[in-house]
Amino acid sequence: MANIRDIAKMAGVSVTTVSRVINNHPYVTEEKREAVQEAMNSVDYQVNRTAVNLSQGSSKLIGVVVPFAKHPYFGLLIEGITDQAAEHQYHVLLIQTKYNLDREQEALDMLKHKQIDGLIICSHQIELSVIESYSRYGKIVVCENAADNQNVASVFVDHYQSFNNALNYLHQKNYKRIGYCIGRNSGSNSYFRHKAYQDFLGQHPQQSFIFDNNYYFEDGQTIVEQISHLKSKPDALLVTSDVVAAGILTACNHAGTKVPDDLAIIGFDNQPIAKMMGITTFEIPHTTMGVKLFQQVSNQSSAVQHEQLPITLIERNTVGKR
Amino acid sequence: MANIRDIAKMAGVSVTTVSRVINNHPYVTEEKREAVQEAMNSVDYQVNRTAVNLSQGSSKLIGVVVPFAKHPYFGLLIEGITDQAAEHQYHVLLIQTKYNLDREQEALDMLKHKQIDGLIICSHQIELSVIESYSRYGKIVVCENAADNQNVASVFVDHYQSFNNALNYLHQKNYKRIGYCIGRNSGSNSYFRHKAYQDFLGQHPQQSFIFDNNYYFEDGQTIVEQISHLKSKPDALLVTSDVVAAGILTACNHAGTKVPDDLAIIGFDNQPIAKMMGITTFEIPHTTMGVKLFQQVSNQSSAVQHEQLPITLIERNTVGKR
Repeated sequence: MANIRDIAKMAGVSVTTVSRVINNHPYVTEEKREAVQEAMNSVDYQVNRTAVNLSQGSSKLIGVVVPFAKHPYFGLLIEGITDQAAEHQYHVLLIQTKYNLDREQEALDMLKHKQIDGLIICSHQIELSVIESYSRYGKIVVCENAADNQNVASVFVDHYQSFNNALNYLHQKNYKRIGYCIGRNSGSNSYFRHKAYQDFLGQHPQQSFIFDNNYYFEDGQTIVEQISHLKSKPDALLVTSDVVAAGILTACNHAGTKVPDDLAIIGFDNQPIAKMMGITTFEIPHTTMGVKLFQQVSNQSSAVQHEQLPITLIERNTVGKR
Repeated sequence: MANIRDIAKMAGVSVTTVSRVINNHPYVTEEKREAVQEAMNSVDYQVNRTAVNLSQGSSKLIGVVVPFAKHPYFGLLIEGITDQAAEHQYHVLLIQTKYNLDREQEALDMLKHKQIDGLIICSHQIELSVIESYSRYGKIVVCENAADNQNVASVFVDHYQSFNNALNYLHQKNYKRIGYCIGRNSGSNSYFRHKAYQDFLGQHPQQSFIFDNNYYFEDGQTIVEQISHLKSKPDALLVTSDVVAAGILTACNHAGTKVPDDLAIIGFDNQPIAKMMGITTFEIPHTTMGVKLFQQVSNQSSAVQHEQLPITLIERNTVGKR
């Protein structure tokens, strides 16, 4: 294959001139530019774009860490991020971790080794302090409240406040035995949610009901089965994913459990499935979140920003008045 | 920042030796290797892994083209591909196109410009002949029947056969007015499905019912509304996505349309939502498909392979006997 020296020889110019043409440098005469283009075309010379980006100190790649690519919540974030990235001539390098620490470490190493220009971490198992130690190699943005961190940027919603609002809303509607369903019970977002629950139980003593490890529609069935075996059952559930809430509602319909009379359900996200099935839910602006995440990671300034996004309760049919 | 020449000077070795240590070349004495490591550590020298990969003629990146990252069907493919990629020290560069021709062209250009080693195209709008013309720059694999193509590899299921089977199955159950719902009505997979439908109508004349542009759960409601306005209605629907089938079933339940008495539904994919809601469906082995797609794209041999995967009818409750 022809290399840059061959092209220079064919065009009768210096290697520097060829390099300038490839990099769209202004100081090249039109005549020389044409000669170089002609030489490149005649041998179908392909510019190695990675090498060009590299010589300009940039990979034009943003790493995006997600635990599961197929989960609709992360799907929406990925969609928002890739849309923005494409508009700004960046591409997205997807790192699916399944919360495996080695995979998360790999993503951090890619930043260290300059394979990516920046890193968006949608959810993680590794400690934030470890993540922070890599911030000197490039911009890192997380999807959780990291507002007191000087080195890692964040875009987040206030999960303490949203849980607190939801719990008090159910309390006002006279629900007395409120539980919650969550993905994993570790991680910063889960911490704030659990804290809100604990604080609420401190003010309004009741039995605690926590169901964890729920991500998908079919997990709703498992939750309803678990509840059927409980002697004393919850009368309301906060469910941190609409897809799981839809699964719970469907399983309740099959099992003859009346929603909202026997069991109230509040979802999170406001996914289309929640609208369709009439599920009361907290709307989280995922697309906006994806856009903001990209803006922060691609931000050239060295300032680390923290941005909180508002969430809104959408009242539908899965909460009544007792 | 220290460069490779600085490290060589500090370690008292040649630049070649430093390069060999970075690239794990065997011909370096233990003594020199240690001296180089020490020098690198002392200035926190970070290997630019992209530059190393590049010097070895590989980006270690596989491009994956999907129209929508948030759609569960593509989510499953992405999950299968990224799992395999991670096992083989590759990473996935995600290109979300929304069927935009410029975005699809961009993906092909990335292969041409060596930013990626290979390209998996899960679905596309651009013509296969255009895709084929880029196959000289690297391996390309598509998710459709391209068995007569010499240059583009493929992993696919037989959509003609599956539609044909489903139509005859419904015919045997005495359904007489069968329609189908699909994502887009262009593309190779849609072509084979439509051909099976036309051939079936040739053998068993009936009115034709085709609903296109359906991707998500909420599209099911639109379909049921459209049907409610029809004077003569279909009595059975093939639905090319379980998620849409679930939306149709839910909308039927709300509207009082009895499934399977008034309307039979057959989905495709065998997503968890189909199992949960008792939807009769064709199981498509997505995870296996993702694995095979990666195997083909990373296959070092120059042979272009075509692999057809089997699909299976899973009988549940949305088809009866009339």
